[in-house]
Amino acid sequence: MKKRFAHIAAGLAFVLASGIAINAYSQVKPETLVKQRQSAMNLQGKYFYGHLRLTAQGKVPYDAKMVARNAAYLDALAGMPWDGFTAATKDVKSAATPAVFSEPAKFKDAVDHFLAETAKLVALTKGTDEAAIKAQILAIDKSCGGCHDTFRERQ
Amino acid sequence: MKKRFAHIAAGLAFVLASGIAINAYSQVKPETLVKQRQSAMNLQGKYFYGHLRLTAQGKVPYDAKMVARNAAYLDALAGMPWDGFTAATKDVKSAATPAVFSEPAKFKDAVDHFLAETAKLVALTKGTDEAAIKAQILAIDKSCGGCHDTFRERQ
Repeated sequence: MKKRFAHIAAGLAFVLASGIAINAYSQVKPETLVKQRQSAMNLQGKYFYGHLRLTAQGKVPYDAKMVARNAAYLDALAGMPWDGFTAATKDVKSAATPAVFSEPAKFKDAVDHFLAETAKLVALTKGTDEAAIKAQILAIDKSCGGCHDTFRERQ
Repeated sequence: MKKRFAHIAAGLAFVLASGIAINAYSQVKPETLVKQRQSAMNLQGKYFYGHLRLTAQGKVPYDAKMVARNAAYLDALAGMPWDGFTAATKDVKSAATPAVFSEPAKFKDAVDHFLAETAKLVALTKGTDEAAIKAQILAIDKSCGGCHDTFRERQ
């Protein structure tokens, strides 16, 4: 997991610390960054709430291939929103709470936890332990909710 | 590639043909489907136009790790929009042209072409042939443009 987050940290560093990259990325308006991170969250919702959680809850029939595909999609999407939470986006209207910007270490921990849980699900979907897969989906659900409690305005 | 598209086709079938799945998915409003597919397109733009194409054009320095990561992201995102183009979304305001719905075989071919080009890029990023990687990024750019010419309203 450290490795996964290092990857994201590297992405942030790429945006924030590299002069030439800044020239490329600084053209991205704060509004666009917000739209992009919201897009990643929307798609996490599509695959997680729209299928994986329904599967864990027994509301749709268990389809191992679809679960594995959607877990892989979620894992990719899990890496995408965070470099959109730059200081420049602080005043753009969104569901992010001020805590995202005032408590970056806590936010990073929450993200890190989510990435760890998602990676565990991907690993489990290489096997056939349906009960463990369903339990891990519910662990991810807790991770989503735990982060949203502090870092997303109540919807 | 056939395999990749079969996977998507299976996703569509999952949505369109399975009774129980329909119960789960039919709660998704056409407006939500449009928002989800637009989210996938936005994120393709983030990683493709916002980094990969700039790299191929020599506008940002070549970073092999970042190119490989973003190619993998693009490859995942490449599978995500298409099940959002259901007949129910035909009259929802979006940039999709009527041809998406009136010429489904042609639309499928364009999607198939995009998936093939993206998979080729992912394969190339396992190696170190920078020139081939850059050429393949530009091939993807053509594929995007070719599809948009017919299936996206002029922006």
